[in-house]
Amino acid sequence: MIDLYTWTTPNGRKVSIMLEEVGLPYRVHPVNIGAKEQFDPAFLKISPNNKIPAIVDHDAEDGPRSVFESGAILIYLAEKTGKLLPATGAARTDVLQWLMWQKASVGPMFGQYFHFARAADEHVPYAIDRYDTEMRRLLAVMDTRLAEAPYLGGAYSIADIATYGWVNGVRKLRAGDLDWADYPNVERWLADVGARPAVQRGMKVPGDAEPYSQVRAQAAAVGD
Amino acid sequence: MIDLYTWTTPNGRKVSIMLEEVGLPYRVHPVNIGAKEQFDPAFLKISPNNKIPAIVDHDAEDGPRSVFESGAILIYLAEKTGKLLPATGAARTDVLQWLMWQKASVGPMFGQYFHFARAADEHVPYAIDRYDTEMRRLLAVMDTRLAEAPYLGGAYSIADIATYGWVNGVRKLRAGDLDWADYPNVERWLADVGARPAVQRGMKVPGDAEPYSQVRAQAAAVGD
Repeated sequence: MIDLYTWTTPNGRKVSIMLEEVGLPYRVHPVNIGAKEQFDPAFLKISPNNKIPAIVDHDAEDGPRSVFESGAILIYLAEKTGKLLPATGAARTDVLQWLMWQKASVGPMFGQYFHFARAADEHVPYAIDRYDTEMRRLLAVMDTRLAEAPYLGGAYSIADIATYGWVNGVRKLRAGDLDWADYPNVERWLADVGARPAVQRGMKVPGDAEPYSQVRAQAAAVGD
Repeated sequence: MIDLYTWTTPNGRKVSIMLEEVGLPYRVHPVNIGAKEQFDPAFLKISPNNKIPAIVDHDAEDGPRSVFESGAILIYLAEKTGKLLPATGAARTDVLQWLMWQKASVGPMFGQYFHFARAADEHVPYAIDRYDTEMRRLLAVMDTRLAEAPYLGGAYSIADIATYGWVNGVRKLRAGDLDWADYPNVERWLADVGARPAVQRGMKVPGDAEPYSQVRAQAAAVGD
């Protein structure tokens, strides 16, 4: 059994989608970051960076194991099950580089955009413009990649699982103020990934809330 | 032979340090991001997100392979050589979760701090304060971790290599305006990692410049 500590954010949903995809049994423990539950000392023992998601795998090969950081959890679950991350070769590298791209750029930079555009106590046009420009650049990079391959890593993988919640959230919240016709391959990918039953189930954990309904609380936890 | 495309930044130095640690032969190709060389079409084929570092390994098992994203390159080189990332078990998970912590938080958030504190065309106190607060939080998380283990992943690993250049840069540039006595374990770790000959060699690639002498150019490439 795996204990999943999560909340209704793109990073939390990465792990619930993955658990649904690989079919491992898990128990959900909501950590309400709006109520600052991520600073609870018991949670900090599992997640020393005070962020969701985190897991405890009670069936790890060398005893119960906790894992924090969504990207590390995705690799852990992929290697545990042999699914959604090729074990060797160029196909493995392709998945890992796009997973890292999500971790280092899409998550942090989309997060900064939403902080300044939606959550900040102060209106800072310079910062909104900075992160809007970066968001458009990242969507263009993604669109170029998805013109040459059906999924970010080639075949469907943990790179897509990591990226879906963030781009899906932006697609909804910026439906009117970004020209999505500029990103036709991203649109196709969103439809393909979003049609997967495991993705649909995972996106409802730990509840149906849209990711950015929690944007103020999430942005308070600055990083990712 | 490995071709390394890099510049004098903390992300570039991750890979030169790693190549020095594992002893693989490599050729250095400086990509001057101040002169926007990262947008050259030939470079974009290797690094579609227009960032350094990237590598081409001409001796990969299935033919020449390019890899972008510093974190993916570190994992690739570790798995190629069997060094600095345990192959299985909790020790592997420990390294990967701290590597991801660097990728998702230390790199992007330290980068935003330096943009607003040193490089931005506009003075935005709100943003400087936001990222200063986050930098202090991350240093405190790191100090707590390094009080319980000598290195981030337990033993010395790619997690330390990923983090060293960023924290070393901050240690020098904020020598006077952060109270480093608050982070004694980080200070000890900086000394230990910095004493390694491979780290000293890697930090001089592709030249001796301090990382943040290039801060304006680096910050222009927003993400990481």
